[in-house]
Parts: sequence; C-alpha cells; structure tokens
Amino acid sequence: MDTFAVETTPTAQEMLDLEKNEGKAERTKWVLSAPEPPSPWRELMDYVLPEGGKFHAKTGFNPVLTLLQQTFPILCWSRNYKATKFKNDVLAGLTLASLCIPQSIGYATLARLDPQYGLYTSIVPPLIYAVMGTSREIAIGPVAVVSLLLASMVTKLEDPVENPVAYRNLVLTTTFFAGIFQAAFGLFRLGFLVDFLSHAAVVGFMAGAAIVIGLQQLKGLLGLTHFTKKTDIISVLEATWIAVHQSWNPQNCILGCSFLCFILITRFVGKRNKKLFWLAAIAPLISVVLSTLVVFLTRADKHGVSILKHIKGGLNPSSVQQLQFHGSHTGEVAKIGLLVAVIALAEAIAVSRSFASMKGYHIDGNKEMIAMGFMNIFGSFSSCYVATGSFSRSAVNFSAGCETAMSNIVMALTVIITLELFTKLLYFTPTAILASIILSALPGLIDLNEAYKIWKIDKLDFLACIGAFFGVLFVSVEIGLLAAVTISFVKIIITSIQPGTEVLGRIPETDIFCDVHQYPMAIKPSPVLVLRVKSGLICFANANFVKEKIIKQATEEQEGNVEENGKTSAQLVILDMSNLVNIDISGIASLEELHKNLVSNGIELAITNPRWQVIHKLRLSNFVGKIGGKVFLTVDEAVDTCLNAKSGTL
Amino acid sequence: MDTFAVETTPTAQEMLDLEKNEGKAERTKWVLSAPEPPSPWRELMDYVLPEGGKFHAKTGFNPVLTLLQQTFPILCWSRNYKATKFKNDVLAGLTLASLCIPQSIGYATLARLDPQYGLYTSIVPPLIYAVMGTSREIAIGPVAVVSLLLASMVTKLEDPVENPVAYRNLVLTTTFFAGIFQAAFGLFRLGFLVDFLSHAAVVGFMAGAAIVIGLQQLKGLLGLTHFTKKTDIISVLEATWIAVHQSWNPQNCILGCSFLCFILITRFVGKRNKKLFWLAAIAPLISVVLSTLVVFLTRADKHGVSILKHIKGGLNPSSVQQLQFHGSHTGEVAKIGLLVAVIALAEAIAVSRSFASMKGYHIDGNKEMIAMGFMNIFGSFSSCYVATGSFSRSAVNFSAGCETAMSNIVMALTVIITLELFTKLLYFTPTAILASIILSALPGLIDLNEAYKIWKIDKLDFLACIGAFFGVLFVSVEIGLLAAVTISFVKIIITSIQPGTEVLGRIPETDIFCDVHQYPMAIKPSPVLVLRVKSGLICFANANFVKEKIIKQATEEQEGNVEENGKTSAQLVILDMSNLVNIDISGIASLEELHKNLVSNGIELAITNPRWQVIHKLRLSNFVGKIGGKVFLTVDEAVDTCLNAKSGTL
Repeated sequence: MDTFAVETTPTAQEMLDLEKNEGKAERTKWVLSAPEPPSPWRELMDYVLPEGGKFHAKTGFNPVLTLLQQTFPILCWSRNYKATKFKNDVLAGLTLASLCIPQSIGYATLARLDPQYGLYTSIVPPLIYAVMGTSREIAIGPVAVVSLLLASMVTKLEDPVENPVAYRNLVLTTTFFAGIFQAAFGLFRLGFLVDFLSHAAVVGFMAGAAIVIGLQQLKGLLGLTHFTKKTDIISVLEATWIAVHQSWNPQNCILGCSFLCFILITRFVGKRNKKLFWLAAIAPLISVVLSTLVVFLTRADKHGVSILKHIKGGLNPSSVQQLQFHGSHTGEVAKIGLLVAVIALAEAIAVSRSFASMKGYHIDGNKEMIAMGFMNIFGSFSSCYVATGSFSRSAVNFSAGCETAMSNIVMALTVIITLELFTKLLYFTPTAILASIILSALPGLIDLNEAYKIWKIDKLDFLACIGAFFGVLFVSVEIGLLAAVTISFVKIIITSIQPGTEVLGRIPETDIFCDVHQYPMAIKPSPVLVLRVKSGLICFANANFVKEKIIKQATEEQEGNVEENGKTSAQLVILDMSNLVNIDISGIASLEELHKNLVSNGIELAITNPRWQVIHKLRLSNFVGKIGGKVFLTVDEAVDTCLNAKSGTL
Repeated sequence: MDTFAVETTPTAQEMLDLEKNEGKAERTKWVLSAPEPPSPWRELMDYVLPEGGKFHAKTGFNPVLTLLQQTFPILCWSRNYKATKFKNDVLAGLTLASLCIPQSIGYATLARLDPQYGLYTSIVPPLIYAVMGTSREIAIGPVAVVSLLLASMVTKLEDPVENPVAYRNLVLTTTFFAGIFQAAFGLFRLGFLVDFLSHAAVVGFMAGAAIVIGLQQLKGLLGLTHFTKKTDIISVLEATWIAVHQSWNPQNCILGCSFLCFILITRFVGKRNKKLFWLAAIAPLISVVLSTLVVFLTRADKHGVSILKHIKGGLNPSSVQQLQFHGSHTGEVAKIGLLVAVIALAEAIAVSRSFASMKGYHIDGNKEMIAMGFMNIFGSFSSCYVATGSFSRSAVNFSAGCETAMSNIVMALTVIITLELFTKLLYFTPTAILASIILSALPGLIDLNEAYKIWKIDKLDFLACIGAFFGVLFVSVEIGLLAAVTISFVKIIITSIQPGTEVLGRIPETDIFCDVHQYPMAIKPSPVLVLRVKSGLICFANANFVKEKIIKQATEEQEGNVEENGKTSAQLVILDMSNLVNIDISGIASLEELHKNLVSNGIELAITNPRWQVIHKLRLSNFVGKIGGKVFLTVDEAVDTCLNAKSGTL
C-alpha cells in the first residue's frame, strides 16, 4: 500500500489516512466482537455426530434400501457386475488361494493352533467381508503379526501344549472380543483410536514383529523339539543355542532352506518381470506339493523330518459352545482382544487405504471397522481365529488384477474345496516348508526405505519407530507397542508446549510479518519488537517460560536501542497470536504478569489476530481491558497505529 | 490494494500486474528456499543453555564478587539498606513472629511431630532464605499443606505413635531429599517441572487439602483420643462419628470454637478496616496467651481439656546423625521427597511471584529453587522439617509493610528467644487452640472466586481443578495430584490434536483471510475453498480425520457450485498452514492422499505460509513437487494466482 501512497496528493493522503484509521478501528471492533465460540461439549457432539444423525439419502426414496446398501456395499457394486470383471476376479481369487492355503496352515502353527484352523479362518471372514467391506483389493484371512500376538499373549494364560483345548477356547474367545471391539469402534465412530498407532510406530513394530516371527521359525526350520515360550530375541537365541547343541535335524534344515531359496528366487524373478508375478504367487503352493512328494517318495519322515500328519478335513465346525465368558481369564482375554483388535485394524486399514488411494476411491474407516468386527464375531462362532487384511496377499490380489471383493469369495470357495477333498494329501507335508513359507513373507513387513525416510524427515518420529522396534525385539510385543504409543504422545506434548518465541519481521513489499530466521530478507520494524510464540498453546506448562523469554527479549531490545540511539525510546512489544489455538488460565495469568512487567519497564504490549477461543477467553478474563484495548487484526495495523500514537505524544 | 487499482491507467495496471506477479514468484521462492531449521538437539541445547554458559557480568570487573552477589542476593540489597527500611522490617518481623509461633506449633502437630519441631523449622530455613532468596515478602516456615502431605505419606512407612523416633528420622530424611531435589531443579534449570502443576490444579488441590486438614483438626477440637490414619473425607468422618459416640470432651470443643470465633471476627474486622490488620495478625498469639491463662487458672486440664504439656526448650539440635540412607525405606522416602519438593515449590513460587508482580520486580524461578533447596538441606541437618513460603503469613508480612527479607531474620530471632525463654509458659496451652489456629488459616487456601473464574473461562481447566479437589478429598493427596496432572496433560493433547477445519473468508477491504464463523463479515472467495486446520499439529492422531474432513468439504462445495451455476467449475482448495507448528510422517502421508483424492475429483490443492519446520519437512518428502509447487506466502496471492491461471486456461 505504501508504494501507492506516493502518487496521491497530500489532501487525498490525509483523507485516506483517516479512512484507513477508521477501517482499523472498525476491524479492531470486529476482532473484539466475535460471537461466542462453540463450547467443548458442542464441539464433541459435532465430532461424534457430524451428520446430525441423518443418513445420506442420495439414491432416493427407499430408506430401507439405502440403509441396506450402506450396510452391505455388495448390493451396490453387484448391480454393475459384469462377466469381464468376474473373469479377472476368478483368476485373482485362484492365485490368492494358492498363496493363502500354505500361509494359513503356517500362520495357524505360528498361533499354536492345529493347521485346519488357519484354513477355517480363510473361509468365513473373507465371505463376510466380501458382503460388508468397501475395499476391493484387500485379502482377508489369518496374518503373521496377529498370529504371533495371539500366541505370545494367550500362552501366558494357558499352555497350548498341555491344554490345547483350553488354549484354543481362549483364542476363540479373544477373537470374539476383538470382533466386538472392532464393531464398537466403527459404530461409535472411534476409528481415530486406530490412528493412535502412528505410521512411524507401525513401521517399527512390523519390522520388530517380522524378526520375532522369523526367530520363531527356527524351531520348525531346525526341527527342534524343545523351545522357549518367550518371544524376545535374547530368550529365543539362547533357547535355540541350547536346543541345537542337544538335538537338531539337518534334513529339516536342508529341505526348508532349499525351498526358501526357491520361493525367494521366484519372488525376485516376479519383481523383475511383472508378467511372471504369478510364479512368485504360486511358488509356496509348488513348494508344498514338491516337498510333500519328496517326503512321501523318500519316506524322509522316518529319518527325522517332521511332517504335518493328520489335518482334520471337513468344513468349519461350530464353536459357539467353546467361547468362555465365565472363566477366571475373561478380563485378561478381553484386554488381549482389545490389543489384537487395534493391531488387526491398523494392518487392515493401512492395506485398504493404500490401495484405495492408488486406485483413487474412498474408504470409510468406520464402515471398514464394522465389517471387520462382524467378520471376527461370526468367525469366532465358526472356529476361526482373528482374521484381518494381509499385506502380502493383498499385494498379490492387486497384482493378479482383482476388480472387486469377489476374489475373496472365489478364494474362500477354493479353500472350502481344499478342506473337503485335499486335506489327506497334506499328511506328508514337512513342517520345515511351512517355516520357509512364513519366512519368505517376512521381508515384506520390514520397510527399510520407509524407516530411512522417517529418519530423514522427522528425528522424533524415528525415535517412536525405533522404540517400537527394540521394544518388540528385546522385551515383548506389548511393551514395544506401549513404548511406541508413549513416545508418540510425548512428542505431541513436547511439540505443543515447545517454549520459546520467534521474532517477526516485515517481508519486503508486503504487509506480512514472518519469522526473521525463516525469511532472512524480513526487516524488523524498529523500535517495535514483533514476537510470536513457537507453539500453538500458551498453557501452564510453557506460559511462564514464554513470559520470561519475552521480558528478556524486550529488555535486551530496549538496551540495544539505548546503546544505538543514545536515548531511551518508548518501546512496543506486539504479540502475534494468529497461530495460538488455545490458552488456559495459567497462560492468561502469565500474559497479565507480562503486561505488568513490561509496563513497569516503560514498554507497551499489543496483541494481533487472536483466534476464536483465545479472544473469547481474553475478553472473559478482562485482559483486553487491561492492555487498553490494544488488539489489532494484523501486525501491520498494530505497528502503524502504535507508532502514530507515539509520534503524536512525543 | 484493489481500491487503488481503479485510479491507475490500464497500462500502468498491466505493469503493476506484471510487477505483482514477479513479486509473487519471488516470494514463493522465498517460502521454498528457507534455510534449514535448527535440529531438535540444537533446540534442546538452546533451551538448557540459554546464556551459552556465560554469566551476566553487568556490575563490572570482579567475577568472584559477581558470582557471590548472584548466589547471595543479600550482598546486593544490604548495601542500600537504610534505617527506615529496618524499622519497617522489624515491625513486620515481630507481627510475623506473633502469627508464626502458634502456627508453627500447630503445623508440627499436623505433621505428627513434637511441637518444638515447628519452631525449629521457623529458625534455620528463614535465615538461609534471607541470605539466598530473591523474594522480599515471602514468609518462610512450616505450612499446612506440606505438613499434611508429610504426615499422610510418611505414616504409611512408620507409625508416629508407636515409633516416634523412627518416624521423625524419616521426616528429616524426606526433608533432606526434598532439599536436594529443589536445589537440583534450580541448578539444572528444571524449574518448568513445577509449572506442570497447572494453576487450576493447584487451586483445586489447595481447596481439597484445606478441607482435609480441617477434618484432621476435629481430633484436637473434639478432644478425641482414637482417630484414623487415613486422610480421605469418608474415613475421617466415619472415625469421628465412632469416636464421638465413645468419648468426647465438650470443654475442649467450647474452648476451641470460642477462640476460633474470636480469630475469625478479628480477621473480619481487619479486612474491613485495613489499619486494624495487625489485630488479625496477633489474634492467634492473644488466643494462645488467653487460653493458656484460662486453663492455668481453672486447672481445666484436670477436667479433660488436653494440653500441650512439656515443650523442649533450647535451640535446634543437630540431626545429621538421624538422616537414614541405608534403611529399607530409602527409595520410598526419596519419592515422597520429590513430591513434597514439587508441592512446596509450587506454593512458594506462587506466593513469591504474586507479590513480585504486585510490586513490579522480577523473581528468578531457578534461583528461588536453589535457595529453597539449600534451606531445606541445611534444615534437615538441624532438626527442621520441610519449610516453604506460607500463603497466609506472606500476606501478613506484606500487609505489615516489610521491605526486604530482613523481616524473616527478625522473625527467626524472635522464635529463637521464644525457644530459649518461653517454652515453659506453653505447658498449659490447650491443644484445641492449636486446632482452631490451623482451622482459621484454612479459608485462605480455598479460593472460590478463582474456581468460579476458571469455570467461567475454561471448562476443561475446571475439570482439572475439580479432579484434584475430589481426588484429594475422597481418595488421597497423591491421587488428587496425579488426577490433576493427568487431566492437564490430556487437555494439552486434546487441544493439540483437535481434529477439524475452519473455513476462511476475506475480511472486507483487506487481504486478510480469517475464520468465517469468528468474523461473520468475512467473504468466501468462490469457487475457492480456503481452509485452515483447527489445531497446531497435523500428526498421526488427527491427520486422517482432517484429510477426510477436507475431502468432504471440498466435494460438498463442488456439488453446491454445480447446483448453483449449473456447470462443473474447476475447484481449488487452499490450505492455510500459517498456524501449523509441526507435521509428522503420518501427516505428510495424509496430505499426499488428500492431494491424490482431490486431483481425482478435478480439484487442485495449494498451500500457503507454511512455517519453518513444516516447509522443511514438506520439501524433504517432496510434497512440494507433488502439488506442482503451489506454495504461496499469503492466501490472497494463492487465490489470485490460481484464479488467473484458471481463467487463462478456460
């Protein structure tokens, strides 16, 4: 505006000044007369009931149909479902099944259940998800991390070797609780709870869990009979060391390692040549078939190669009677259910969101949670343990060109056929192969690139990542998670109460004031000190520090001016509040003390652009009156007005 | 700027536009080329070593003298100390002593120690504080809340009735630890730890503690012999109910209540007529003298009025040998010491700051803590328990016209004389009087006005206040504090991750964009949607919610425009980042998803005025590149540029 001022005549200039001042006064009035902001209760209600309870009734007139379509998205997409899509889905579903069957058996052993429970879990949950879920690429079934989590936590309550039935009942009850929690999260719009696991924490946790799972496979790979129940790296390595010295079986190891190499090589080939990705996808199934044949033909099981033996055939039996709500462990089981629910949701939602963002459609987190919840609740009634979306299988599903959740249905049907017809063929499957299939899926859980990116961008986030990683690796799965969540929240607190101030200066040719360190070309408007608080809050934890910092800066500035100009110039401190989200009682008290102290040193205080909650509280506590109404909309206006007032007085 | 534009010729207008655009491009470059912000470690160092380790050497050439003067402020103020000041200080000191002696005895019994320990505590700590402290009005000695805290916590370790010596030793050791912690807080500049007790929490805690202390006085006032060790209101009322039905002494009660009325009436008179404040100040001493005389003359002690009996005369004995560092309780005692240290500092610093702000001088929190620490360390060597600044006595000291810490010295000398000469006279002092003196000091701890103010200004702060109050009252002192600290920090987290967005509009006749709800006169620049995140952080806990909110708002706005204009107008979302203090990996990932989603709906995304840490991270993660460099310094420039670019394309 100053560049134009030269062109106008003096009279016009005065007129403009007058207008400008009136405008300023008017705007100060606007700042001070803001309507009352919404109360905390109101804001909470807005958050919980963002729609005001009403349904989106876009499709028209039938509320029942709308509700049904909202609950069962399959009713929407099935209407436009075409034969070409179906062909793609069948191909993807079959590819998925070829990977899913060996993985399910492997993860069931990781969860210390009989192999068929993994297959059961690949039937009911995918079918229910296909009806209720909104993601098109996710592959539902048992996953490694959840299996590990269940095994490590439920084992503390009941020994899976001594009381396999009691252990299984607890796992099924945990699944039921996990489903209830997941559905409740969705129904009560508590999806944000899952966000409390920050991305950095999930990266660290997954990497740690992958290593822990890998170490657990040493048992199967080396054919060990005695092994520790603990999951931390030191206990496991110690147990392995001791067990290897007692007895181990080299054939198991050779068999496992050679097929692991085979699977990894096919994966490498599949990554290099995208057309051969199906080779990587069916490699585990090929390994199972080949190794079973080898063992059957050589009868290696008589020479110490451990085999799966009998897998119970037939479809999922009902397990409603096996859920336990009256035992001594119910509280513990509910707690484990909560933890498992959160981890399972974190994995599933990360998977579905990443593919949805890739294909450009929208995932409703709360609806997803309801679908996950129901699939686990019904799963727990039909001998399934906790299912969720698998990282590795969803990627295969995506690469295989799936179009809708139909691929999950195809996969479930394939698993049903397997259970009905082919379980006997798996009698001679060596357990070492299961270990190598699990091991081959682990590298996908360790994302070194992402960890490096986190380190590069945000050192404190990396701390949460590393905390989760080492916590899982050296202590236990729960401690790792706890460490990560704690670090993440402490980081929020530290950032929010970060004490300290920034000196602002005017960006050349504008009215804008910015941090002089961020913008070295910004010019400080002497003899005015324009400050901004670094954090978004002035509260009990930083108010006093901020106050003392400002007093120190103001007096130093004053002394500096005295030295430069040789006279005590009346000073002004402008506190830019545009970034302050909120202030509390202690903060207001500190501002009052700051004002008193500055006044006693002959320095005035003005504030600019306070936000809604802040100006409301400052008005209520009469701080505005105490500083003589020196509240402005912009720093520029504050500097102008105060300097004009000064030059008028002098 | 637009108002001027009319006056210039078209050619000039074009020239200006050109200049304007060049300026904009230049400024966008400034935003993007900000230097690297300081690392977290650097910021931590700046906080811990704000002076870079150097001393303020204002007074000149002798560094030893400067250091001495900094450590012992008495060396500064004593040089200008005049006779008139001394007269005022002596008067204030004597008034203080008349209140301090009965209170000290009362608080010692509250702390379950022999009466003389209260007097000891009024000698050494005030003398040391007078030499090292910077506050001029604070009155040092035993206080009610700290006495209660010690009694309620140390009693759990050792029974004061069965093992009085062991109990006393633990109290002295706690005092030593409290002093060590306080000095350490000061030396390592950890003063902010005391700020973690928010003002609201302190108000609630003090009120709760006052009621608990008052309930404890029922024992003395009713002359009960059996009483509970617990402090919560339910246990105490129950114990009183039972004890009263067994045996109580009405004379005790009548004596106590009548003198309580006398003290309260004098206080009322003193408040009405400021000149008579000394009456209120010496009323407790008068009560002690009168009641002692009454009991001595009527020998009421033979009729069941309980009296103090023998108080050991003579100065503080050494207690260095009684500190216990090898017992089984050392860890517990250190913990109690830490808690007591924080509470004592919170009270003292609140007192000294409020008077300093009233008289307009500056209190150095860290120096105060060192002084408090040393006075308690040396106190623990000379049979004193934890001393701190007393609310009630500091107010009396101020009203009596004290000028410097000399009034504390005069008070201490008076207490020394009392201990040497007059302890025998206190033989017949009834304990009910001590109870009434303590009770009379309690209303000062309950600040209903402040509580109402907190309720009025900040509902969530009031929750912390009420949490502390009920926690202390119904559970225990520690739980009350824990509740208050927890609520305070949860409040910080909630405020910082508050999800949601504000729609911004242009304030008439300016380039400024503000919340349209706060400024109803602001005009939304259609078809552009300008948004700002409500909190100062976009992080894992709110990033996803914010993303979905923005997508929803943008698509609704788009639909609205389509309905109004009948054609799909290309949309633009501008995210004003001026209030964002920081962003984390999850936040950046959400912004990327937001951008992808908006683009797939034909909406563009621009960001304005990101702060230092934010633009640094956005640059590192290449988000700036992904949104096509649409980064501007102000919302106004973003709106102009993007609309011009659009109209160019159409």
